[in-house]
Amino acid sequence: MTRNDAQTLDHLTTLEDLVSALPPGSVITDPTSMNAYRWDRANDPNAGVPLAVIRVASTEEVQTVIRFAAATGTPVVARGAGSGLSGGSTAVAGGIVLSLDRMKTIEIDPVTRTAVAGPGALNAEVKAAAAAAGLWYPPDPSSYEICSIGGNVATNAGGLCCVKYGVTTDYVLGLTMVLADGRVVRLGGPRLKDVAGLSLTKLFVGSEGTLGIITEVLLRLIPAQRPPTTLVASFPTLDSATDAVLAITRSMRPSMLELMDGVTINAVEDLTRMGLDRGAAAMLIAQSDEPAGHAAVEIGLIEDICTQFGATECYSTDDPDEGEAFIVARRMAIPAVEKLGALLLEDVGVPLPRLGDLVTGIAEISANREVTIAVIAHAGDGNTHPLILLDPTDEAQQERAHLAYGEVMDLAIRLGGTITGEHGVGRLKRPWLAEYLGPDVLELNHRVKNALDPQGILNPGAVLEHHAAR
Amino acid sequence: MTRNDAQTLDHLTTLEDLVSALPPGSVITDPTSMNAYRWDRANDPNAGVPLAVIRVASTEEVQTVIRFAAATGTPVVARGAGSGLSGGSTAVAGGIVLSLDRMKTIEIDPVTRTAVAGPGALNAEVKAAAAAAGLWYPPDPSSYEICSIGGNVATNAGGLCCVKYGVTTDYVLGLTMVLADGRVVRLGGPRLKDVAGLSLTKLFVGSEGTLGIITEVLLRLIPAQRPPTTLVASFPTLDSATDAVLAITRSMRPSMLELMDGVTINAVEDLTRMGLDRGAAAMLIAQSDEPAGHAAVEIGLIEDICTQFGATECYSTDDPDEGEAFIVARRMAIPAVEKLGALLLEDVGVPLPRLGDLVTGIAEISANREVTIAVIAHAGDGNTHPLILLDPTDEAQQERAHLAYGEVMDLAIRLGGTITGEHGVGRLKRPWLAEYLGPDVLELNHRVKNALDPQGILNPGAVLEHHAAR
Repeated sequence: MTRNDAQTLDHLTTLEDLVSALPPGSVITDPTSMNAYRWDRANDPNAGVPLAVIRVASTEEVQTVIRFAAATGTPVVARGAGSGLSGGSTAVAGGIVLSLDRMKTIEIDPVTRTAVAGPGALNAEVKAAAAAAGLWYPPDPSSYEICSIGGNVATNAGGLCCVKYGVTTDYVLGLTMVLADGRVVRLGGPRLKDVAGLSLTKLFVGSEGTLGIITEVLLRLIPAQRPPTTLVASFPTLDSATDAVLAITRSMRPSMLELMDGVTINAVEDLTRMGLDRGAAAMLIAQSDEPAGHAAVEIGLIEDICTQFGATECYSTDDPDEGEAFIVARRMAIPAVEKLGALLLEDVGVPLPRLGDLVTGIAEISANREVTIAVIAHAGDGNTHPLILLDPTDEAQQERAHLAYGEVMDLAIRLGGTITGEHGVGRLKRPWLAEYLGPDVLELNHRVKNALDPQGILNPGAVLEHHAAR
Repeated sequence: MTRNDAQTLDHLTTLEDLVSALPPGSVITDPTSMNAYRWDRANDPNAGVPLAVIRVASTEEVQTVIRFAAATGTPVVARGAGSGLSGGSTAVAGGIVLSLDRMKTIEIDPVTRTAVAGPGALNAEVKAAAAAAGLWYPPDPSSYEICSIGGNVATNAGGLCCVKYGVTTDYVLGLTMVLADGRVVRLGGPRLKDVAGLSLTKLFVGSEGTLGIITEVLLRLIPAQRPPTTLVASFPTLDSATDAVLAITRSMRPSMLELMDGVTINAVEDLTRMGLDRGAAAMLIAQSDEPAGHAAVEIGLIEDICTQFGATECYSTDDPDEGEAFIVARRMAIPAVEKLGALLLEDVGVPLPRLGDLVTGIAEISANREVTIAVIAHAGDGNTHPLILLDPTDEAQQERAHLAYGEVMDLAIRLGGTITGEHGVGRLKRPWLAEYLGPDVLELNHRVKNALDPQGILNPGAVLEHHAAR
């Protein structure tokens, strides 16, 4: 009898059965060792103590775990690199944390221009493997060096180049998924067009572990990006910067268009001493990856717009390394602001014309609640990351910070925006989902969830409120 | 009491009730007049005689019709422009044909770079409205002048520029849908990133009227395309042309890469007399829309590859009108071949490395079954349209043609391909869906369908086999 013999698996009813059905060393039950797997970067204070952490190495092992979970009604929280920012991987009391961090294989097929990756492969590792074949996997969350591709797919992660190149779902051609009953399905394939049957691959992207467990990802790659030309522009007010963003995106497709506010600029400058303009209220970083000659023209047009909207200083460079230094500064924004205190990290997005209203409204919330809110934004997408600073030793301030966190989402909803552009709902944002979606769309979400996971064992409490098994 | 008063609608139990709840002239029941709405371009011989054809003008009217259908268990087949090629809009006996052809409004917002369109607006009308604002809606089915945007979304339609610019789903930011119980939901919005809740917008795209009725589409637009440079290359064998395609797509992203085989070339030449190479076994048409200077370089590289793989004649032009003449020739391929007889139109796709095997295998099927099969292809996507010619007066040949139709799909499945790349499953390809998806993925399709349309009133028999109401 093999480990995965169906008859055996039907009789996995105790944790001991499960341990003996998996390779030695797969199951962690020691409380101290489990602590490394109880939280993602949202640090949800309500994380439970799981029954076990299981580090799987194959699709078959995931099936074994899910069959046990289905047989026993045990909740399963899937986990990639644990870099999630919304608590989508927070451990559930008495549940299993299913860690996919060992499933890291990456294969590149240069002929079909695709990558097949295990969910535990890091985004940066996929990018590197693609680059070695002269290809490019575009989606680039700021955390790309530490986040897993499985987590990227689970949250439909975004990043900096999305303003021109789209988000994770645009690059997912296929998925291998283990369903809530332990069956494995392969969806999609290395075909650029396929409309046979419902769009299930797309449905699973962004489902945050609530509909199935991703065990393999098939990604579309494109030819390597051309070396970019970079512009950095300082603005005297936030409004002037967001107005410039609107004027730029109206007619152009820069390959990057990022914003940092004054608090962020100073935090980054504290850390990097690279000479950023500490007096600026906002800074835009734009890149163009048009072919030689044309990038300079595009960046020139963007610079003209910035100047027209009051930029006090513009600096552009076609040296990719020098440009990359500014992008590194942008990517360091969260850790830099984190030096000032603990963070509540927001991810609200609005239609582009409301970007100015959003940042103005955030400033008002900051003033009313007496908490510092640093703002960074994938400005060209209208997707902002207000970083709410709090002192964990000051209970009153902590409470005000949490109120501000909710008010920022309320504001985004009022402006026709979303409560999460790229991080996911997880557990932290779940209380706002109902208001955002409205009762009918929320009910539609529950209907699909119940159809695919009728027992409610997959990541219960993430995205949607947990309903008891039917 | 208004027309849409809920109490009234709960009591719509006869067609007379429905007629009186809708504006005069909405409901067609005269058999001759209904004939114009019983078939799409698949000309399904099994089309039924519907109870009524209803031409709706608003989301509210769609709700009225669906509430009647839900209350009475009446099947509803939604219909845009009737240009579908797989029988997704074939009328069902005793059902309602819900024609959305009157819902044609188009509004362009240049600031968010979006279009809001009624499902009955033609693809060409959306393109024209976008162009008037200096913007571009890329997806371009060959039928773009006669197909509706609602049908494009319902089938996740492709086209010629998809090889670089993606398919319909990549441009759908939001949908207004009437669900199977008559509720209306708005999904998504003018936000470039949004991961709040399950990816329902993406699920509805490509669902062919089986999950809900599209009453409004929110589309992402991009800046106008640059004028393209065009290359036409003739090849002595199909293999040499498909080998060239592989070599091109490996390192480049042309904005178009189309193939026509010898039968098609001659049929088009018969119609256009534009001087195509009648002796060629295959012709590739490639375009580059890179910026000035760079397009010539890209087309030069593609020409080098074509020559290297044995192209006997290459002709390139940077005159957009001259280039467009070749594209028009390509778009005329289906009507041109149709002059030779009735057509069974295929839509199979394979991973690019199997494109050569696919066209070779199709030639074998053609020889074995003694039917002419002309092949055109969105070659850069691996998506082919074998056109199986038949003489409707020759019953034996007709039977052989239908056998060939199935064998082409069987071949595609064997080669790791799909039975439909961009036309949809509809009713014509439904018998092959189970083999393509396998039992588990098929069951997953049914589960989602049952969750969203438990009565099975929405387009029963399209995509999935109709299961009786639960």
